[in-house]
Amino acid sequence: MELVSNKKMILFSGRANPELADEVAESLDVELGQVELKDFANGEIYCRFLESVRGSDAFVMQSHFEPINKHIMEQLIMIDALKRASAKRITAVVPFFGYARQDKKGLGREPITARLIADLLTTAGANRVVSVDLHTGQIQGFFDYPLDHLTALPILTAWFQENLDIDATVVSPDAGRVKVAERWGRHVDAPIAIMHKKRARTTANATEMLEVVGEVKDRACILVDDMIDTAGTITQAAELLKERGAAEVYATATHAVLSGPAIDRLKNSPIEKVVVTNTLPVPDGNRIDKMEILSVAPVIADALTAVFEDASVSEIFQGENEQM
Amino acid sequence: MELVSNKKMILFSGRANPELADEVAESLDVELGQVELKDFANGEIYCRFLESVRGSDAFVMQSHFEPINKHIMEQLIMIDALKRASAKRITAVVPFFGYARQDKKGLGREPITARLIADLLTTAGANRVVSVDLHTGQIQGFFDYPLDHLTALPILTAWFQENLDIDATVVSPDAGRVKVAERWGRHVDAPIAIMHKKRARTTANATEMLEVVGEVKDRACILVDDMIDTAGTITQAAELLKERGAAEVYATATHAVLSGPAIDRLKNSPIEKVVVTNTLPVPDGNRIDKMEILSVAPVIADALTAVFEDASVSEIFQGENEQM
Amino acid sequence: MELVSNKKMILFSGRANPELADEVAESLDVELGQVELKDFANGEIYCRFLESVRGSDAFVMQSHFEPINKHIMEQLIMIDALKRASAKRITAVVPFFGYARQDKKGLGREPITARLIADLLTTAGANRVVSVDLHTGQIQGFFDYPLDHLTALPILTAWFQENLDIDATVVSPDAGRVKVAERWGRHVDAPIAIMHKKRARTTANATEMLEVVGEVKDRACILVDDMIDTAGTITQAAELLKERGAAEVYATATHAVLSGPAIDRLKNSPIEKVVVTNTLPVPDGNRIDKMEILSVAPVIADALTAVFEDASVSEIFQGENEQM
Amino acid sequence: MELVSNKKMILFSGRANPELADEVAESLDVELGQVELKDFANGEIYCRFLESVRGSDAFVMQSHFEPINKHIMEQLIMIDALKRASAKRITAVVPFFGYARQDKKGLGREPITARLIADLLTTAGANRVVSVDLHTGQIQGFFDYPLDHLTALPILTAWFQENLDIDATVVSPDAGRVKVAERWGRHVDAPIAIMHKKRARTTANATEMLEVVGEVKDRACILVDDMIDTAGTITQAAELLKERGAAEVYATATHAVLSGPAIDRLKNSPIEKVVVTNTLPVPDGNRIDKMEILSVAPVIADALTAVFEDASVSEIFQGENEQM
Amino acid sequence: MELVSNKKMILFSGRANPELADEVAESLDVELGQVELKDFANGEIYCRFLESVRGSDAFVMQSHFEPINKHIMEQLIMIDALKRASAKRITAVVPFFGYARQDKKGLGREPITARLIADLLTTAGANRVVSVDLHTGQIQGFFDYPLDHLTALPILTAWFQENLDIDATVVSPDAGRVKVAERWGRHVDAPIAIMHKKRARTTANATEMLEVVGEVKDRACILVDDMIDTAGTITQAAELLKERGAAEVYATATHAVLSGPAIDRLKNSPIEKVVVTNTLPVPDGNRIDKMEILSVAPVIADALTAVFEDASVSEIFQGENEQM
Amino acid sequence: MELVSNKKMILFSGRANPELADEVAESLDVELGQVELKDFANGEIYCRFLESVRGSDAFVMQSHFEPINKHIMEQLIMIDALKRASAKRITAVVPFFGYARQDKKGLGREPITARLIADLLTTAGANRVVSVDLHTGQIQGFFDYPLDHLTALPILTAWFQENLDIDATVVSPDAGRVKVAERWGRHVDAPIAIMHKKRARTTANATEMLEVVGEVKDRACILVDDMIDTAGTITQAAELLKERGAAEVYATATHAVLSGPAIDRLKNSPIEKVVVTNTLPVPDGNRIDKMEILSVAPVIADALTAVFEDASVSEIFQGENEQM
Repeated sequence: MELVSNKKMILFSGRANPELADEVAESLDVELGQVELKDFANGEIYCRFLESVRGSDAFVMQSHFEPINKHIMEQLIMIDALKRASAKRITAVVPFFGYARQDKKGLGREPITARLIADLLTTAGANRVVSVDLHTGQIQGFFDYPLDHLTALPILTAWFQENLDIDATVVSPDAGRVKVAERWGRHVDAPIAIMHKKRARTTANATEMLEVVGEVKDRACILVDDMIDTAGTITQAAELLKERGAAEVYATATHAVLSGPAIDRLKNSPIEKVVVTNTLPVPDGNRIDKMEILSVAPVIADALTAVFEDASVSEIFQGENEQM
Repeated sequence: MELVSNKKMILFSGRANPELADEVAESLDVELGQVELKDFANGEIYCRFLESVRGSDAFVMQSHFEPINKHIMEQLIMIDALKRASAKRITAVVPFFGYARQDKKGLGREPITARLIADLLTTAGANRVVSVDLHTGQIQGFFDYPLDHLTALPILTAWFQENLDIDATVVSPDAGRVKVAERWGRHVDAPIAIMHKKRARTTANATEMLEVVGEVKDRACILVDDMIDTAGTITQAAELLKERGAAEVYATATHAVLSGPAIDRLKNSPIEKVVVTNTLPVPDGNRIDKMEILSVAPVIADALTAVFEDASVSEIFQGENEQM
Repeated sequence: MELVSNKKMILFSGRANPELADEVAESLDVELGQVELKDFANGEIYCRFLESVRGSDAFVMQSHFEPINKHIMEQLIMIDALKRASAKRITAVVPFFGYARQDKKGLGREPITARLIADLLTTAGANRVVSVDLHTGQIQGFFDYPLDHLTALPILTAWFQENLDIDATVVSPDAGRVKVAERWGRHVDAPIAIMHKKRARTTANATEMLEVVGEVKDRACILVDDMIDTAGTITQAAELLKERGAAEVYATATHAVLSGPAIDRLKNSPIEKVVVTNTLPVPDGNRIDKMEILSVAPVIADALTAVFEDASVSEIFQGENEQM
Repeated sequence: MELVSNKKMILFSGRANPELADEVAESLDVELGQVELKDFANGEIYCRFLESVRGSDAFVMQSHFEPINKHIMEQLIMIDALKRASAKRITAVVPFFGYARQDKKGLGREPITARLIADLLTTAGANRVVSVDLHTGQIQGFFDYPLDHLTALPILTAWFQENLDIDATVVSPDAGRVKVAERWGRHVDAPIAIMHKKRARTTANATEMLEVVGEVKDRACILVDDMIDTAGTITQAAELLKERGAAEVYATATHAVLSGPAIDRLKNSPIEKVVVTNTLPVPDGNRIDKMEILSVAPVIADALTAVFEDASVSEIFQGENEQM
Repeated sequence: MELVSNKKMILFSGRANPELADEVAESLDVELGQVELKDFANGEIYCRFLESVRGSDAFVMQSHFEPINKHIMEQLIMIDALKRASAKRITAVVPFFGYARQDKKGLGREPITARLIADLLTTAGANRVVSVDLHTGQIQGFFDYPLDHLTALPILTAWFQENLDIDATVVSPDAGRVKVAERWGRHVDAPIAIMHKKRARTTANATEMLEVVGEVKDRACILVDDMIDTAGTITQAAELLKERGAAEVYATATHAVLSGPAIDRLKNSPIEKVVVTNTLPVPDGNRIDKMEILSVAPVIADALTAVFEDASVSEIFQGENEQM
Repeated sequence: MELVSNKKMILFSGRANPELADEVAESLDVELGQVELKDFANGEIYCRFLESVRGSDAFVMQSHFEPINKHIMEQLIMIDALKRASAKRITAVVPFFGYARQDKKGLGREPITARLIADLLTTAGANRVVSVDLHTGQIQGFFDYPLDHLTALPILTAWFQENLDIDATVVSPDAGRVKVAERWGRHVDAPIAIMHKKRARTTANATEMLEVVGEVKDRACILVDDMIDTAGTITQAAELLKERGAAEVYATATHAVLSGPAIDRLKNSPIEKVVVTNTLPVPDGNRIDKMEILSVAPVIADALTAVFEDASVSEIFQGENEQM
């Protein structure tokens, strides 16, 4: 018996960020795959796919948002079910990769949880990962199969190119991450400035501002990072920039983690606009006026199409997606 | 350079059931190992061991209690950190094994999450597992390394032997699990009765009582199961037993999951006493008068000592720990 | 160089049950693949495929029949040869899965041989398994890749629906396996009865009958199980049913293991008809008059076609194939 | 809790060659470990260890003798049970390694069964293998963990040094295996001769004698090989040697497979003495007068002691155990 | 979204033998894939593929030529990059497989480097290997996935059939490798002769000639082996053959390793012609007059086409490619 | 048979940096283990251990120095031989970890060679790695077993504390690596300055200096990095520092790669002293006057002792070894 081989793409979403999944599906012009997901009384997750996935090229999208451990586990369970239901290839789509900052041992006897998450995805049955603006490029090396790395840089920089009307400086709020600022600098054709801070070793969210280096006076200062979590660093940075004469201060990041005091800090800061994307859902209560949320759905949709059709993902980004 | 090899046991506890860990440590006459565990603002777990674990025989105790996915992930992260910190052997001690009921596909395109949990523990770095009264014995086969299986049966049956003063019948609330009742019957030297119910296929907590088979009139009926979750089945069983003339009805199980409406149902049921163990923590609000909570700490302590000293675990239970 | 991908199905058979393989091939309207299988003088098996299998979707059918260990090994060797000959995907088709009852430790220091068999198939190179009416559903969890689970239930129930002319009761000869009876009950729309027996722990074939529960008097009693091995349990059950007034007693099971004294016991029992399938070969000497052997070949052929064509297997059985 | 680590050696035997196991145990001055092994009615093997093996250095001895597939499977099952019962290290002792001649593909679409057997042992849980006079040294490379390779060469050559009283020539019955003869030549300080034959490709037991090269006239000719299977090659060789004027002809090999027509051929051949070892059992019916069966038990016992005590195995053999 | 699956073949070459790769590409009528390969100042290799390989059937050709360790590493790095760039299948094409002679332990505490190389290729990401005239067939068993084994025998024998005008004898320079000579004998329809030598154990290149067996006087003697390395054995053999009256002596081998004194020895030997292939590059300085270098490119091209198109490789060689 | 377990440490060295191995052995007060290492004529490496390693805790030291690929392969081969010779635990000691800068994809279709090297060590048989001042901490996450990370920081800072007599500034020559400078700053209690440069994307050694930030005038400027490779960045940095008024400029790094033009650049630069360690050998020709080479042997010896004796490695460094 002989047949021509076909391939069929199906996109499924976990419960962490269904809005983004809907937008991606719309961009792809497909229906989201049908899956039942619910919690039993004791918190165990139940999962069942409601349509045949046999032989399919299945994509399981889940952002690692709070409750983050539950959402990670849900993605693992979905992957296990797809594997057992004979999906041909399973791609974990992780717009925000949880635990990415725990990518090395800062002190003895710590875990390397980012590697652990990579291994858990593999164990569950993922054959490939798609993620957006990973905290460090080395996380790709935590996998021994392909990770397609996307970036929201073109989306974010486009907003600034349209909306700024004075000369800009790209500011790195942390000297250790100046390469992100350099990449931004090239894209928006602006000089960069560096903020040099010390971070207390074991308390990841507390920071200590030191100084700013570079041209900031009377300029539009764009504070850039991969994520805004508690917003401590970035709001202190913003204040210092204003002290040093910045005309306007913007904060931008791909991932709007916005946990704990983040919203209050941003609201009370001199930051003009906080420009982020929807890799993570922003609950209505967090959608303050000064926040611009841009959609990465078109970028993800383009990448998934390329993955499905064996087209180049690098070309979508002209190579800018790997250079962190 | 030559040395005599030593081995050193250290017991660590996650945050799910620290009381049980304390009791086990006390039974072992050791201090619990020092570990820092906390949540970052976005829910990511931070873990660091505060004493050297190099070369140790490390035991990581965590019951899979609500929030169950977080507690599972915490155990995985602790194991990863121990592995990277050069613990010689890592034993996951799981008094209640989460997702144990999802041990097969009840419908197409479901996961087998119990196997997934087994694989996740292995991936994180566990070399061995200790658990108590697994839902089904086949879960041992989900591991390809030793799982030491303990049972609370001697503890639970001892309570009834001391506290009952009329003739007893052991009742299985579900025909599919009659072997547990048979084992009880042998232990307390009592006849058994079977309740035959139908369970709707995809809704795991809803049940449909059918009938009771065996001598129950004017007897002390002991409803036995491995766990009490929402208590629907067992309270319906109790009512039927009373209707059929049971003098007293008891419910007993190793694992007090007690989720959702469980406490209300038990309170309002004709059940005399609910006899459970502390494999799972019972929050103060759930400690109703009719509940007896027996400690498995001595049994776990004996087993861990045997594992550490290469003594036989079967002998602790005279072989009763494997026969489900 | 670019080509459209084709896929080609080839079905091979080991020497355990060539008749079934022939029937499946006929149902599929294909020739069985050519393979040379023979024994060297010292009992080593020689295997060579006589046609190109490169790039093929290869199915290797072998029932685990006596000499069971040799037949298992033969299947492993065939799979190894296919793997090295570049078959693209290898499916082990195991109508009767050997050692399925050794799926947990009944006593300390026993193996879990069913898991071992699963691992051996994987090691040899199987990418997928197809089996019929596994002894317990948890065996699916012994694999970390898809196992397509088929059931002979529709075939067996159809026979009874055609051949019974008085009201039937479905009887479970063992309380621990009442779910099989419940499923039968739904299918033939009949009440169920339960036989409650004790089984001595280490001697798997000896049994001890206890009692029957449910309506059996003047009815056609259908004793149902997944397999009939030495037929001890089922013939004792039949006698008790007759004592309790059953009008007719039938025994039915998917797998006709029929080892040791089985044929004599069945012949001498009050059982009217023994209705089984051909997942295992029934040697001519065992084909007693009261035996009906139904063919699972059409069901297997449908399933293999679905596997090959990426169609849903669940649909063939309307979901009844997973619910044990 | 701290302890000094102990290690405990236990030797278990499968049912293939219990006499050899007894002899090895006697040489070691230990009791064989207690294990229950039996067959169920359908041929499935049951295994249970009757003493605690937790933490032990366990050795499982099984020669791959007829029924060879069953004996291999029995060893796998024993290893699985030891692994699950927490043996610390498991060594498969395989005096005769089955399927060793299927160590490469002689034709397309053949298996490499010797590699498969290696993988099956690994999958079951073996951590190490001990074997005697492997057919080819490359089989060591089929494992990715240590295989301790023993040789019966000193035992066999000692016999000839004591029992021959005329000048000897060592004869290789197959040019492809002349290295064995060269090693013998060095040991007994004798010249070698080579028999050059062609072997039909797919029929492993049929041979075609060509010629003999070297000094054989009026000498004691010792035909050497690793095993005597059907004895076709070696008896034809013996006849040719007699034709060419050999005074006496001896046949010697480590492994007395002796299958099919072997005993008849040897009995009717001009061979003076057949000198073999007891790596395989020689049933009473096969113990013809001209056969000398030497025991490898002392060599195996020495090797197991070295393995257990971390002493050098090479030294036992002065390095002669690796040079095939 | 559904698509017909396509497959696309791309052939890449490392820097060891680009001429052969060019010839193979030409035979295939394709362009070699574009890849940047260079050395950093400290000797680390840099690799980047310059065209999309996503979804491709990628072949990475590298002969293991000096500097052999660097060339092996380069192939591993190329495979890693292809894997991460989402090549669908990666075939390592290794015309000469390095370390093939280290395929067993000759002495205790030696590595089995040929198995290590196999494992390294697998770890990097190879899914399949294609090689030519492996030193021993058992190396196929070092892989647990398909190795397509090609042979230059038809190419080499064709040369002799065209160029010899007196009767030939095929001579094995080493009794241990007489099977190669037997195969040659069948192909060129000539008798064979055997040279019997002893090789000192730890010094792999030094040899000790013993004698020649078979008809060589007044004949064209063709010394055959899989490779010519330092040419010590083969030139000594040639001299002995001349002493014994050989009319002409030829040396032939698939692999022209030609290291150390090889060229001088060959030049000064009585060998008429050295007939080899281009599996390894022969630098201009080594291309002496008496050397004939035949191209294996057409054979490799045919094999790669068969692999890509799922056609039989055995048929290209009429089965002669597996019989060593 | 029961014994107390002993453990025995043996340190072996490859041929990359035998001087360092000798020093470490001297610090440990042991003899280096005996191993034969040589090259065959075609460049294949031969390895044999000359003493029993059975049951030992074996350490294999090799710095990844030029010819770097050969030295990596040599370490892999040594590990393979140790594994097969029954070493109990194998630790790869890698003072300088090759390919560490290729730890992520800078462009599409690049390899992640640092991860590949980690996997190759694992495949060969390493159970643990010890390394010094890894280029990025994430490389620890490329292993799924313990990597003990050592630092030369205390050794290097001690030199400066003894030898500087004016106020110092620690200078990061690359903004992306400012954390190293911060750690230095804390240790020598000095302010830090940052040099901000752009690096052309695909040409790893070429750099483009931008500016210096921080107090450098009239101070002793210590340029710090993990390695000095071609010395381009650091000598340009030194010149700029002098231009900006630095009183003295020092360059310091753990790893003296010193490839290509490095020595000339350093000699001709305004750098006062180049302070490095002996993780890599510095050939005599490279030992210019201004170079101080400090020994890491005592630090490595302390760490190996701690690893062997199950003592804490973190304590040796007071936790400073993990904080990059």
